[in-house]
Amino acid sequence: MKLIMLSGGSGKRLWPLSNDSRSKQFLKIFSNETGHLESMVQRVWRQLDKANLHHHAYIATSYSQTEILQSQIGTQVKMIVEPERRDTFPAIVLSCLFLFDKEYVDPDETICVMPVDPYVDQTYFEKFAQLEEALGYSSADLVLMGVIPTYPSEKYGYILLEPGHEECKVQRVRQFIEKPNSHVAKELLEQHALWNCGVFTFKLRFILDIIKDAGYPLSYDWAVEHYSVFTQKSFDYEVVEKAHNIVAVPYQGSWKDLGTWNTITDEIKSNVGRGIQNSDCENTHIINELDIPIIAIGTSDTVIAASPDGILVSNKAQSPKIKDIVLSLNQRPMYEERLWGWYRILDFTKNQSGEQVLTKRVGIHAGCFISYQTHYLRTEIWTIVSGSGECVIDGVWQSLNVSDIVTIPAGKRHAVRASESMEMIEVQIGRELIEEDIHREVMDWQDVLKICQTR
Amino acid sequence: MKLIMLSGGSGKRLWPLSNDSRSKQFLKIFSNETGHLESMVQRVWRQLDKANLHHHAYIATSYSQTEILQSQIGTQVKMIVEPERRDTFPAIVLSCLFLFDKEYVDPDETICVMPVDPYVDQTYFEKFAQLEEALGYSSADLVLMGVIPTYPSEKYGYILLEPGHEECKVQRVRQFIEKPNSHVAKELLEQHALWNCGVFTFKLRFILDIIKDAGYPLSYDWAVEHYSVFTQKSFDYEVVEKAHNIVAVPYQGSWKDLGTWNTITDEIKSNVGRGIQNSDCENTHIINELDIPIIAIGTSDTVIAASPDGILVSNKAQSPKIKDIVLSLNQRPMYEERLWGWYRILDFTKNQSGEQVLTKRVGIHAGCFISYQTHYLRTEIWTIVSGSGECVIDGVWQSLNVSDIVTIPAGKRHAVRASESMEMIEVQIGRELIEEDIHREVMDWQDVLKICQTR
Repeated sequence: MKLIMLSGGSGKRLWPLSNDSRSKQFLKIFSNETGHLESMVQRVWRQLDKANLHHHAYIATSYSQTEILQSQIGTQVKMIVEPERRDTFPAIVLSCLFLFDKEYVDPDETICVMPVDPYVDQTYFEKFAQLEEALGYSSADLVLMGVIPTYPSEKYGYILLEPGHEECKVQRVRQFIEKPNSHVAKELLEQHALWNCGVFTFKLRFILDIIKDAGYPLSYDWAVEHYSVFTQKSFDYEVVEKAHNIVAVPYQGSWKDLGTWNTITDEIKSNVGRGIQNSDCENTHIINELDIPIIAIGTSDTVIAASPDGILVSNKAQSPKIKDIVLSLNQRPMYEERLWGWYRILDFTKNQSGEQVLTKRVGIHAGCFISYQTHYLRTEIWTIVSGSGECVIDGVWQSLNVSDIVTIPAGKRHAVRASESMEMIEVQIGRELIEEDIHREVMDWQDVLKICQTR
Repeated sequence: MKLIMLSGGSGKRLWPLSNDSRSKQFLKIFSNETGHLESMVQRVWRQLDKANLHHHAYIATSYSQTEILQSQIGTQVKMIVEPERRDTFPAIVLSCLFLFDKEYVDPDETICVMPVDPYVDQTYFEKFAQLEEALGYSSADLVLMGVIPTYPSEKYGYILLEPGHEECKVQRVRQFIEKPNSHVAKELLEQHALWNCGVFTFKLRFILDIIKDAGYPLSYDWAVEHYSVFTQKSFDYEVVEKAHNIVAVPYQGSWKDLGTWNTITDEIKSNVGRGIQNSDCENTHIINELDIPIIAIGTSDTVIAASPDGILVSNKAQSPKIKDIVLSLNQRPMYEERLWGWYRILDFTKNQSGEQVLTKRVGIHAGCFISYQTHYLRTEIWTIVSGSGECVIDGVWQSLNVSDIVTIPAGKRHAVRASESMEMIEVQIGRELIEEDIHREVMDWQDVLKICQTR
């Protein structure tokens, strides 16, 4: 069995903690068994590890998430990078081609597709063996995991089963019903329908045949280059709903779709970060990523979330409305996690000459480095405030220690590496300070050192 | 007439905007006639100016407020600096001695004491002439301004008048009642009692006699040196309640004691700073001094206030409870206004060697300077990001422009002056970063320049 884990989403619904560079699955707000905070991705990865499945897992994602994935679950994670965001059908097609064409996976291998961030208990992962087994003896094209509903939700998709086999482990699927109204949802519960939780199992051959039937080659490289030919639709619409031979395996454990503040706050501590609630507060959550304290007095049914991007104060039930408001903000992310470390924007202003001035705190993990690069529109000034390392500026090597200062005028090539975990205050000054103003040259540190005339 | 304006308070009740260095009267949250934001002190000063009274005003304050007062209402303001905080009786005694001993004010001059920050309309200041007049013809020791109450408040002090003269402009005072219960307050309103608003008028001689009777000399310098001999009590308890010959002049205009968020939000716009409220919000105020947005969704009867010191989310009615919670925080102020400019703490952390690292944005007004000084426990690194100026480091002069960097190791003397309004990012690194680690030497810029060997 190979697992394809889909990692998508921009996560405007969990603003201000989530942003374009940090989707909801990467927020470290859940307490694990030892009391440390972990993200949904880290939680799932820990569960996969326990179920001995993570060696079989591939994460299908966009380029923008590759560094945070490696940073959160380790550089050994196998990733399939989508050339652009195009919904789940193209992502699964691309992943299957990667497995077949690059990893030489047998067309008869079982493929299990799942979201990268379900909030579930360990039995969810134990179910995977049953899914594979069912695929074997049912001769179905697709085996779905179906969650046994706990209430007549209007938010989810339902799997209606052929009647008369309620006692069986595996049941034939009759129909899919998306987001029914409350009345229909109640009827579906009476008919023992299941929630569709996005877990699909099939033989690799099943998808390869779909690609061949569409007239496309079974080539991963071709697919990367011609990615836009694959219909921008969900796998549910493009494959599942068109298939005739589908069975479902019911899952009775806990399953939660934690996509909004009102759902997520049920699963986390009432104070994450620096938060104080007085005794009159009721059903209030404070999630604070800032260094300054948040004090809540006499609030009820309220979520308060703060990050370098902004501050949300919302009635819990109404919190899903944040998505539309945030779309109008159009703000650059104030915190980013990268493979080499992280940065946080401390201050962003304009000076009297009309130049932009951006102050960042930048952390580089021990042994990590930022590749040899050039900015053309800005001067950067680094003040080392913690740890030590080395840098190369226009071919000149320099060691870095606390209190050292490095000035990099626009157009000068520079690279930096941390020996021990290093932090700096970086001041950028320039006409236009954008992440795109970057020309990368040498990606390997040993090659950077070779360039140095002096050392 | 001379005015003594009392400027006190630490203002924990308006946390996080107010702090030890910025009391409530200095918060710029009120819109003036042209739509600009002004503080309570600036508002009163504007009104005094209009009433042509500000030339007669002296502000009694502590040293810690002198710079922000000059910064907000101008360096020409006359201040009487209390050697330590000791309540209103010692402050008024000291002020009277200053007027007599240093300003040669005639003992028969009328003195009017008032708070520095009443929220009133212009007619309040027009009343001052009547107070002086009443002092002349009533032969009373004290003339008080009494606010005609608008409701039976339990929070204020009441002035009960001798009955039978309700129609007179000036009425004899019978008794003072502090913070009555609701029942008594209603009775007081029926008896035409007035609110005591802290405005006292008397002949300078009246206080000088009290000082002489206590056996103290009429010397300002002596009083500064022996300030602790003056009882640490309020003027109300120590003087007003002991006096027998008091009259009151009623004031019918608006008067508000804006000391807590629930009272202040009645007088300011619902969004001050970057705030967005969705259409479901009711009776919500956002006061935001941070650069990041605050979004409120579905909140009601709520005040949200954010500053570099922290974030408050409170039910309005319960907001006075903030005072006790903040007392336990014991945090250094993250924003300070000084005579020469201002600074804001962007980041405060510890590095791996256990040193503290503090990053500030510092603004110096055009023409202003920071005196020649030395820190012994920290290195400072300045990156100029806006404007221009000059500095002197250990006797060496240097011009400063955008992108220039100055390193000041511990123990090095340094001074800096802005030619045009200048901003820098300052990084401090040291074992212990405290404001007290400062040795000031030369206070005048011309003297600093004389020290330079080179220029």
